Amino acid sequence: MHVLILGAAGMIGRRLTAALVAAGRVGNDPLTGLTLVDVVRPEAPAGFAGPVRVEAADLSAPGAAAAALKERPGIVFHLAAVVSGEAEADMDLGYRVNLDGTRLLFEAIRALSEAEGYRPRVVFTSSLAVFGQPLPPVIGDDFIPAPASSYGVQKAMGELLLADYSRRGFLDGIGLRLPTICVRPGKPNKAASGFFSGILREPLAGLPAVLPVPDTVRHWFASPGAATGFLLHAAGLDLSGLGTRRTFTMPGISATVAEEIEALRRAAGADAVALIRREPDPAIMRIIETWPEAFDTRTADALGFEADASFDAILAQHIAESR
Amino acid sequence: MHVLILGAAGMIGRRLTAALVAAGRVGNDPLTGLTLVDVVRPEAPAGFAGPVRVEAADLSAPGAAAAALKERPGIVFHLAAVVSGEAEADMDLGYRVNLDGTRLLFEAIRALSEAEGYRPRVVFTSSLAVFGQPLPPVIGDDFIPAPASSYGVQKAMGELLLADYSRRGFLDGIGLRLPTICVRPGKPNKAASGFFSGILREPLAGLPAVLPVPDTVRHWFASPGAATGFLLHAAGLDLSGLGTRRTFTMPGISATVAEEIEALRRAAGADAVALIRREPDPAIMRIIETWPEAFDTRTADALGFEADASFDAILAQHIAESR
Repeated sequence: MHVLILGAAGMIGRRLTAALVAAGRVGNDPLTGLTLVDVVRPEAPAGFAGPVRVEAADLSAPGAAAAALKERPGIVFHLAAVVSGEAEADMDLGYRVNLDGTRLLFEAIRALSEAEGYRPRVVFTSSLAVFGQPLPPVIGDDFIPAPASSYGVQKAMGELLLADYSRRGFLDGIGLRLPTICVRPGKPNKAASGFFSGILREPLAGLPAVLPVPDTVRHWFASPGAATGFLLHAAGLDLSGLGTRRTFTMPGISATVAEEIEALRRAAGADAVALIRREPDPAIMRIIETWPEAFDTRTADALGFEADASFDAILAQHIAESR
Repeated sequence: MHVLILGAAGMIGRRLTAALVAAGRVGNDPLTGLTLVDVVRPEAPAGFAGPVRVEAADLSAPGAAAAALKERPGIVFHLAAVVSGEAEADMDLGYRVNLDGTRLLFEAIRALSEAEGYRPRVVFTSSLAVFGQPLPPVIGDDFIPAPASSYGVQKAMGELLLADYSRRGFLDGIGLRLPTICVRPGKPNKAASGFFSGILREPLAGLPAVLPVPDTVRHWFASPGAATGFLLHAAGLDLSGLGTRRTFTMPGISATVAEEIEALRRAAGADAVALIRREPDPAIMRIIETWPEAFDTRTADALGFEADASFDAILAQHIAESR
């Protein structure tokens, strides 16, 4: 099975590539080749004997999607997206990449489907950003996507396209709304959500971290390992029993900031916790308080998707990988 | 207030035009002019002294949206769409008109908004076709749009675009999911839903009608007059209290086929009812049984949208207009 990863240079794309190569298989099939595409040229993975093609390409450019499908991959991971803040700041860019790029990909697959009977599994990453206020405390699988950002709108539109192209038989799609990734590796950034990881990652490295919201803030989390696991699981699932709904919120850990901090205390002690400095930021609080707190993910659960075992497990994964 | 109607030649567009001219006002403002656009040239209304421009135009053609906005209408009624069956049969046409046409309209408004501060009220007609199985017996305002047709997908995507362009302040949008229109005037047609009107309209004209489904089938109805009333009401509403959700299911009458028939009996007697011939059609039944039966429309109710008083009132409207 040849695998195409669009957005292969990102954090999840790189982990997914490594996990596929380590497993040597995808779903029930041996991994026979890889095409890795991103706006910056992805790195070819070490330790894989099969053919690997790496390309720097903009999926919204004419012909780019068809070129990416040259090997007729049996599985397409579509992770490529302009992120939330950028899609809000540059409306044209967000719609071009997140909406038009996705539509052009599905249209390129449709063209091959009509010409050759091609019908790949497409695994599309969506986002909790499809949900907007007012929200119930626990959001079920029937809850309306009503986004409060252009990024969320573009992801919700991608979900609808994925369902329609699947229903028509051009592709066999599944969309995953990923929880907020925690602990996100790397440097602190300006994302409103950055502190959820920062208050763990920085103290674990002996560095101070700022907490801009109250301890009572609750959110929905998955480790990078769990997120990669969702993608791998989605690649191998039998989707023939699904109806027209094709995108599902992934299971996660619902945790408050206080619970994050207690996990840090258990893992690294009071000295680590003491590195967290409370600096309430009303601007960040206004953003965060519109976000979902918890989900009832029974459809994804029934499909066999598995959350992290606990917030302690999320933290332990980060500690193990930071060594 | 200058008013633009896109899709002005359709059944609802013609009624809306006549209702605006009869009222001489729209919302709280006098009606000062009309631009009527459709793929076929709409008729100019009689009895209106102000300027009227009628155009045959394809909204998905380059420049068509900007041309339609020449008078900078304060209110844009966007009723233009390729209908459900046609959008399913011709996928490219449906996406081009229903998705691209809507997006091009909103982009043309955005360009004027950024250049001149233009910000019209946009009233967009969506559809119950945004909902797909599995459905609860009564569908609330929080229920997920998960369409089972390309038409439904295109309308759901239009709802998302309307919300995003409203949130960003380029336009002041409201979307109305119209109930199934009953009694639809005109000839019997091949639409799966045709019998809902046919079993009333034909017997009232002394003609036989075919009923292809059981008497127990339940659905959600509005008269042509109520639908026009929703549009007029939407034009004048203060929407400043709305959040990011901008499209709402309109109130309707939930009625079974048996209740339709009893209304016909009350209005026109047993001889009319005897003209209904039961010819069960499993193909039509399979389509109809996936459709919604009833809605909880509390958001639209709170906004002051009003359903017909009863199914008898729906029938009485048709009888009065047929004289």
